[in-house]
Amino acid sequence: MVVIMQNGATKADLDAVLARVEGFKLRGSVTVGESQNIIGIVGTPIPPQLQEMLESMSGVREVVRISRPYKLATREFHPRDTIVDVGGVMVGGGSAVVMAGPCAVESETQIMTVAHAIKKAGAHMLRGGAFKPRSSPYSFRGMGEEALKLMAKARAETGLPIVTEVMTPTDVALVGEYADLLQIGARNMQNYQLLEEVGRSHRPVLLKRGLSATFEEWMLSAEYIMNQGNHNVILCERGIRTFETATRNTMDLNAVALGKKRTHLPIIVDPSHGTGKWYLVAPLALAGLAAGADGLMIEVHPDPDKATSDGPQSLTLENFASLMPRINALAGVLHSV
Amino acid sequence: MVVIMQNGATKADLDAVLARVEGFKLRGSVTVGESQNIIGIVGTPIPPQLQEMLESMSGVREVVRISRPYKLATREFHPRDTIVDVGGVMVGGGSAVVMAGPCAVESETQIMTVAHAIKKAGAHMLRGGAFKPRSSPYSFRGMGEEALKLMAKARAETGLPIVTEVMTPTDVALVGEYADLLQIGARNMQNYQLLEEVGRSHRPVLLKRGLSATFEEWMLSAEYIMNQGNHNVILCERGIRTFETATRNTMDLNAVALGKKRTHLPIIVDPSHGTGKWYLVAPLALAGLAAGADGLMIEVHPDPDKATSDGPQSLTLENFASLMPRINALAGVLHSV
Amino acid sequence: MVVIMQNGATKADLDAVLARVEGFKLRGSVTVGESQNIIGIVGTPIPPQLQEMLESMSGVREVVRISRPYKLATREFHPRDTIVDVGGVMVGGGSAVVMAGPCAVESETQIMTVAHAIKKAGAHMLRGGAFKPRSSPYSFRGMGEEALKLMAKARAETGLPIVTEVMTPTDVALVGEYADLLQIGARNMQNYQLLEEVGRSHRPVLLKRGLSATFEEWMLSAEYIMNQGNHNVILCERGIRTFETATRNTMDLNAVALGKKRTHLPIIVDPSHGTGKWYLVAPLALAGLAAGADGLMIEVHPDPDKATSDGPQSLTLENFASLMPRINALAGVLHSV
Amino acid sequence: MVVIMQNGATKADLDAVLARVEGFKLRGSVTVGESQNIIGIVGTPIPPQLQEMLESMSGVREVVRISRPYKLATREFHPRDTIVDVGGVMVGGGSAVVMAGPCAVESETQIMTVAHAIKKAGAHMLRGGAFKPRSSPYSFRGMGEEALKLMAKARAETGLPIVTEVMTPTDVALVGEYADLLQIGARNMQNYQLLEEVGRSHRPVLLKRGLSATFEEWMLSAEYIMNQGNHNVILCERGIRTFETATRNTMDLNAVALGKKRTHLPIIVDPSHGTGKWYLVAPLALAGLAAGADGLMIEVHPDPDKATSDGPQSLTLENFASLMPRINALAGVLHSV
Repeated sequence: MVVIMQNGATKADLDAVLARVEGFKLRGSVTVGESQNIIGIVGTPIPPQLQEMLESMSGVREVVRISRPYKLATREFHPRDTIVDVGGVMVGGGSAVVMAGPCAVESETQIMTVAHAIKKAGAHMLRGGAFKPRSSPYSFRGMGEEALKLMAKARAETGLPIVTEVMTPTDVALVGEYADLLQIGARNMQNYQLLEEVGRSHRPVLLKRGLSATFEEWMLSAEYIMNQGNHNVILCERGIRTFETATRNTMDLNAVALGKKRTHLPIIVDPSHGTGKWYLVAPLALAGLAAGADGLMIEVHPDPDKATSDGPQSLTLENFASLMPRINALAGVLHSV
Repeated sequence: MVVIMQNGATKADLDAVLARVEGFKLRGSVTVGESQNIIGIVGTPIPPQLQEMLESMSGVREVVRISRPYKLATREFHPRDTIVDVGGVMVGGGSAVVMAGPCAVESETQIMTVAHAIKKAGAHMLRGGAFKPRSSPYSFRGMGEEALKLMAKARAETGLPIVTEVMTPTDVALVGEYADLLQIGARNMQNYQLLEEVGRSHRPVLLKRGLSATFEEWMLSAEYIMNQGNHNVILCERGIRTFETATRNTMDLNAVALGKKRTHLPIIVDPSHGTGKWYLVAPLALAGLAAGADGLMIEVHPDPDKATSDGPQSLTLENFASLMPRINALAGVLHSV
Repeated sequence: MVVIMQNGATKADLDAVLARVEGFKLRGSVTVGESQNIIGIVGTPIPPQLQEMLESMSGVREVVRISRPYKLATREFHPRDTIVDVGGVMVGGGSAVVMAGPCAVESETQIMTVAHAIKKAGAHMLRGGAFKPRSSPYSFRGMGEEALKLMAKARAETGLPIVTEVMTPTDVALVGEYADLLQIGARNMQNYQLLEEVGRSHRPVLLKRGLSATFEEWMLSAEYIMNQGNHNVILCERGIRTFETATRNTMDLNAVALGKKRTHLPIIVDPSHGTGKWYLVAPLALAGLAAGADGLMIEVHPDPDKATSDGPQSLTLENFASLMPRINALAGVLHSV
Repeated sequence: MVVIMQNGATKADLDAVLARVEGFKLRGSVTVGESQNIIGIVGTPIPPQLQEMLESMSGVREVVRISRPYKLATREFHPRDTIVDVGGVMVGGGSAVVMAGPCAVESETQIMTVAHAIKKAGAHMLRGGAFKPRSSPYSFRGMGEEALKLMAKARAETGLPIVTEVMTPTDVALVGEYADLLQIGARNMQNYQLLEEVGRSHRPVLLKRGLSATFEEWMLSAEYIMNQGNHNVILCERGIRTFETATRNTMDLNAVALGKKRTHLPIIVDPSHGTGKWYLVAPLALAGLAAGADGLMIEVHPDPDKATSDGPQSLTLENFASLMPRINALAGVLHSV
């Protein structure tokens, strides 16, 4: 940590900062400049509240943190890729895992039709919503446990592991009974009680990036889960909120490529939510893999026109089937060069 | 709702849309244009999923919703200002209520000192965090129930109603035992289980706007609470996330003025979080009132240098005391012109 | 400037940085940390390209600049408020100057009607567009020099100084013949040739903030003008682009309050562009003054329904007349407390 | 165009809108709803100012435009891909053209070294800045015409067509003497005089997207150029400004894929500016092609540590050489599936 003092800071200001630093058993080393003094802080551990404390002290201009605040998720201390085993499907390390299925489970026919179709097309995992977060209290919010049972049945028939969202801490045990992979939705990326609860479960977790979460906040949310002992975390970029309204969200593939440098955790992308338009799903799915993603999450519905949610961004079974060979061809060439 | 068909939409596309609309007992009225057809949908109620369903149909270019999706919060059907009674303090209708106190309760001495000082300066309510949401799992996260007890003691001594945050549905009962006003933090604005739980309680609720929530999403979150029977909702603008990094957040006072037009609920502003810098709190507090806010929430700490959180944005007791007369003078002139 | 080395930086990396720094006649002072080394750079002047150069060197993690890059606009070296004289109207230092008029000059009747009406209501300056930047090539783009002549005539009749936009370097001389205050529009905030050209003229300049310009970029654009010798720069906050679409732009009043701390230049706000809705102009005008602005720019049109541009955000003559006493009452109380 | 009237709009309001519409020789067709009336406007041409005019009329809630305002750039009336011939290099229709070179031309040695190296590696065009827009007036701003001459020399030696930025209308003729492709930088995307001037030249134009320009505004800027008779426009996505600061900008590859649907013009991507970090250039270059881009613009410098600008985002000659085969392999597979 580096403390940059103000131009007009007094000797007393400087001494107060040094004293505060020493109070934490750290040492401050001063560089005397012509107009400002700089204090380099040496020692560990640096308590998390120190930056804020110093920033509010008299005579301090700025405090710059110089180590990543996410110790468990960072690649710095864990250079090798983490591979997460989700019901036998390995995610990470350059895998090109495809999770597909409807936004919401709507009926047995619907979910079975999709499950068999995506299996046949070559997908590796089945997604489907049982509990749905919706902006409006008047929207369809999912079939709940009944949907979980239907998904389990689909898994039994197809062998595909299942991924579904859990929205509140008290549901973690229930959803964990059925799901192979517990999804934390974008709106809950900073629901810390929920993060800690899935951290205490033994299920792998899919952590979606919040709509306006910075890269660092996303890593810190992974840290919340890992800090409870569960290191099986898969990150999912699903678009951020920007000024642009021509697409539902803005896919941030910079974050995917940056993530492959900064964290050892697997990262997948969700071009369905990331674009909000079915006809942009294929190009952004391919782009996501090219940027370095370890997999994809894609919404597929047998009849998007009648979907209870997210119809406009869902692929038909046919469109999904024709996308899979393109994904595989691309993954092949990405591995070979 | 208005459906705008694509240029090349077929007669079959048009008929399919009309059929879908009629399936909901609504009527579609077609305007035939030279290049596009437009369908005005007449009838009520319009089911919430209809827009999405129609948008994904073949030949549809765009579906425009023309009534506000928040029925309970809108001023359209409830023109008079709602006044929320918080332990005897009336919020709304042009009140200039001031809630003040530390970000987090840290000790009995701290909270008592602040409570007496802000009472003397003329504040109307005491704020203080017992459960703190923090981006990092390694930061101080509040004293929990002990803090609630200290706040209750401060209320007993000063008569100031207390406001504090509740973070998870299972804590609503506990926090509701102590607090006069339950705060939903920005990160939880779309934690629907939590919104519904406070909606089922009988306590007034302070709903902070999410960091990247649109005005409409904010209203819909209020709707979640009201839809459970609790209409005592106070909105709080606390800054949104934008590209600008010179301040912690960007106060959106447009939303305050717009809010006074669109909803009957009271709106307050939080310039401490909205700016992140103590020396910008006073000008933005005054600006918030001038924009139409019904009150203010301000962080005050006896020794901001030593605060466990949000020190840089906290006023000292002295600074707060000198701000109050300016607030009162401004409120006076705003009412008289 | 502070250089933070990477964890694994070598001695050679460190030496290369020190050598580069010394090449500019500066001195680097190293703080040896347990995991990282920090180099404080001492000496002046620090060349502008140094940060970028060092950031791309091997072993460097981050380079932190610690003095403001705008030397002329900063309050650091010029603590007193600059007061700009615009045709006898003094702007700055807590003035509450009101500039009003139509978005575009449309006819002699229109501009004369507005000029007399705003003069009577108490405005201090007349605004009006002669050259209009429009997103679409098919929109009305102004009457050009004819409009300038009409504005000059309005000035002759009312005594109000006039402000109008100049869009391209080769027009500066022409517009400067007529205008008392040359406006640089938001889209041109980083049109450097234009900034330098108005910097070489002797007219005061009104510099609007770009739609997505950071506070620092805005200051640097002022610096471009001042660096040519023209220090009569007035800044204008007119709303930034964010994710919110409920209003046309988001007024950033944080930037106004921050600006009053960081620069000695006058700052005004434009609530017409800042909100895009006439019914939000009054509350945001008042809020702008309360945040510390030295004046206002407000669109007024005798018949907003028929305006060729920006009708929805223009006040009628009546609405403007009823706003002026509220502005004056507010300005009075702001000065007295 | 569709006009949605307010709930409480009167018959007089409706009639006034219809009269205004008829004044433009258009026809309004009213759909009477239970709570609102909707007016579909039929006829052509719809004048550009009509939307704004109607929006400010009494009783009008919203006006929805339903045809794209960019007539020349839209694919609607021009379904086939435009192929732009830049000095013999064909851009568009799925080309994978690579433009490479330094941010700024710094010396003859530098530009010749780069030109020969990228030619050998397989690049198709040479980029290099002669006139540089810089946020600060104190930064290096380019060698001007001397740089143009050096680039022309590099072209003579390598056969690579050259692309360079033009910043102001009066420089178009000069830069056009040397450059095969005139670049309009992001900051000038809405410098309309400049757009029109390059529109009147006979050189192909590379139009970079503005930092905070919506997709539609970008298309409208292309329209400005095309409207002057020059249809040889290549679009370039180079990252937009969002809340995320972990990368310099946020590459919006959604816009690339959307662009391939909505416009016939070629689109390339610039991952150097789009990410700001050299180690993210390769993954985002590949991602850009996978999203559908027709080419790439990449910064290459023989010694990025010593570059006068944009060093941190420049590839070394070696890194560029090793990227080219990956680009070619990817382009191959994208064409075959």
